[in-house]
Amino acid sequence: MEKFKHFKQRVNNALENLSIDKTPKRLYEPISYIISLGGKRLRPVLLLAANDMFGGIEKIAMPAALGLEIFHNFTLLHDDIMDEAAFRRGQATVHKKWDSNIAILSGDTMFALAYQQFQSLTPSENFAEILQTFTNSAIEVCEGQQYDMDFETSENVSIADYLEMIRLKTAVLLGCSLKIGALTAGAKSPQANLLYDFGVNIGLAFQLKDDYLDAFGDYEKFGKRIGGDIATNKKTYLYLKCLELANESNRKILLNYYHQINTNSEKKINAVLGLFEKYDVKKHITIAMEKYFVKAVELMKSVEASESNKTELLKYTKWLYKRDY
Amino acid sequence: MEKFKHFKQRVNNALENLSIDKTPKRLYEPISYIISLGGKRLRPVLLLAANDMFGGIEKIAMPAALGLEIFHNFTLLHDDIMDEAAFRRGQATVHKKWDSNIAILSGDTMFALAYQQFQSLTPSENFAEILQTFTNSAIEVCEGQQYDMDFETSENVSIADYLEMIRLKTAVLLGCSLKIGALTAGAKSPQANLLYDFGVNIGLAFQLKDDYLDAFGDYEKFGKRIGGDIATNKKTYLYLKCLELANESNRKILLNYYHQINTNSEKKINAVLGLFEKYDVKKHITIAMEKYFVKAVELMKSVEASESNKTELLKYTKWLYKRDY
Repeated sequence: MEKFKHFKQRVNNALENLSIDKTPKRLYEPISYIISLGGKRLRPVLLLAANDMFGGIEKIAMPAALGLEIFHNFTLLHDDIMDEAAFRRGQATVHKKWDSNIAILSGDTMFALAYQQFQSLTPSENFAEILQTFTNSAIEVCEGQQYDMDFETSENVSIADYLEMIRLKTAVLLGCSLKIGALTAGAKSPQANLLYDFGVNIGLAFQLKDDYLDAFGDYEKFGKRIGGDIATNKKTYLYLKCLELANESNRKILLNYYHQINTNSEKKINAVLGLFEKYDVKKHITIAMEKYFVKAVELMKSVEASESNKTELLKYTKWLYKRDY
Repeated sequence: MEKFKHFKQRVNNALENLSIDKTPKRLYEPISYIISLGGKRLRPVLLLAANDMFGGIEKIAMPAALGLEIFHNFTLLHDDIMDEAAFRRGQATVHKKWDSNIAILSGDTMFALAYQQFQSLTPSENFAEILQTFTNSAIEVCEGQQYDMDFETSENVSIADYLEMIRLKTAVLLGCSLKIGALTAGAKSPQANLLYDFGVNIGLAFQLKDDYLDAFGDYEKFGKRIGGDIATNKKTYLYLKCLELANESNRKILLNYYHQINTNSEKKINAVLGLFEKYDVKKHITIAMEKYFVKAVELMKSVEASESNKTELLKYTKWLYKRDY
């Protein structure tokens, strides 16, 4: 785990050393701001770990790691506009601190800056595959965000639809990070693709865990209020599973709650949590997320790398997955 | 000129053959929509012309041409949100026809789709330079848009600031198109850079011509009302030059008009046009735009390509530049 702390540390150092204090100030200051808000740096850390696993040189992989992190922060920036979110990591969002136009344009610039990072990899022989992996994932992330927005008003979201949405919106970028990490170390496609699949599976497990924690997390540690997804009528796995399992009258109650806006949310959250309990959706989501996590562990077995490296990566992902807050 | 019509025709055909009727529909329909609105296809046409000039293969250059056009339309889409524009090429803008969130996300996706087009060029030996040229220009276009927005509220915009803004916002992408066209044909950097400089100079001339036409264009042919820039207090070359030349009292009058919103715009436009006439800014802008156009023609002389190709490109750009509507 020490190793992963160091990856994160070096990613943070490299992000600080990016020279983005350029003009026009109102374009670049929001970019520095959102990047400085921190976070787990999950994507670049996974990328560096995969690069290390295949004996790559960290210095060569670092621009790709930064590119992924810049891209990820760009998606957060634009998502926050779309979701009208006021806070990000406890601080004001860019569109609140500046305005929506600044947030749109800073985000656009970050997307280009992400590609600029990738460009320093051009001498590598599998650059085409690296770039393709990044671009395809970027498109899929946009598709995922669109499905997420579509689901807000759709009455016919299935669990399969939901899983596909979170695969696109969240999971593929983890797969992409690991795959690109492997490719920067010169790994061949089949091995890089194994890591991609590993990443997608842990990504799905992580997102389902997020859904789980929103309803069943430790309030003290979680930091956020329990039931935020319920209050905002988010059609998560829990809701969709409960809808599937409930009898006709409870189905109606649940549907009715998810059509309410500006209602007494405490009462609503408690009622919905009661239904979740009644139909034991906690058990069902646990089965689903465990399935993805076990699948990921299984995939790792076929990766042709040192056992110690594989064990370390599994330990890191398990640590992320097992959190109860 | 026939040749350039055919370039445009083939660009339009290739755009129609892009398979962007994918799901989620609400993500891809706005993309098809804005691309189908047409336009001069100036950037891809210039790219194909430069590729042809250096003996390149059109089929190889076409993806880059499409990438540039998709990128350009993405910037229009996001600019329209920022400017709260209701119409684009006589049709409803994407954020009006759908909504702002859809417009933000479709735009983001288009940026990625532009890179996806470029990716098919990876086998070419100067791919790194092509990609770098595109990404750097994309960043500059964002910087230009930010300066443009900053100028709306700034009281200290100089003519030099304005020229730098239009260079970034408009001109570099024409330079980029021509340079990439040359590079796709295997042209060496110095030749490609000559075409870049040519493009930047015609870009500046074209934008100044746009400013000119807003005040002095042929109303019947122009299609738009005369004085749109004046009504919206846009600090164009004309305004800035007039401010520079006017005496103290007329300066105050002009400044006063440009602080008014929701005023009787006909009266205002006529008064401002009167000041433009008084200080002969028509002559001054003509000198400035001619300077850039002559500079471009001069640069073309050093391009190592057939005289007929060079003449044809000059003829096409002259045709674009000389329009009086």
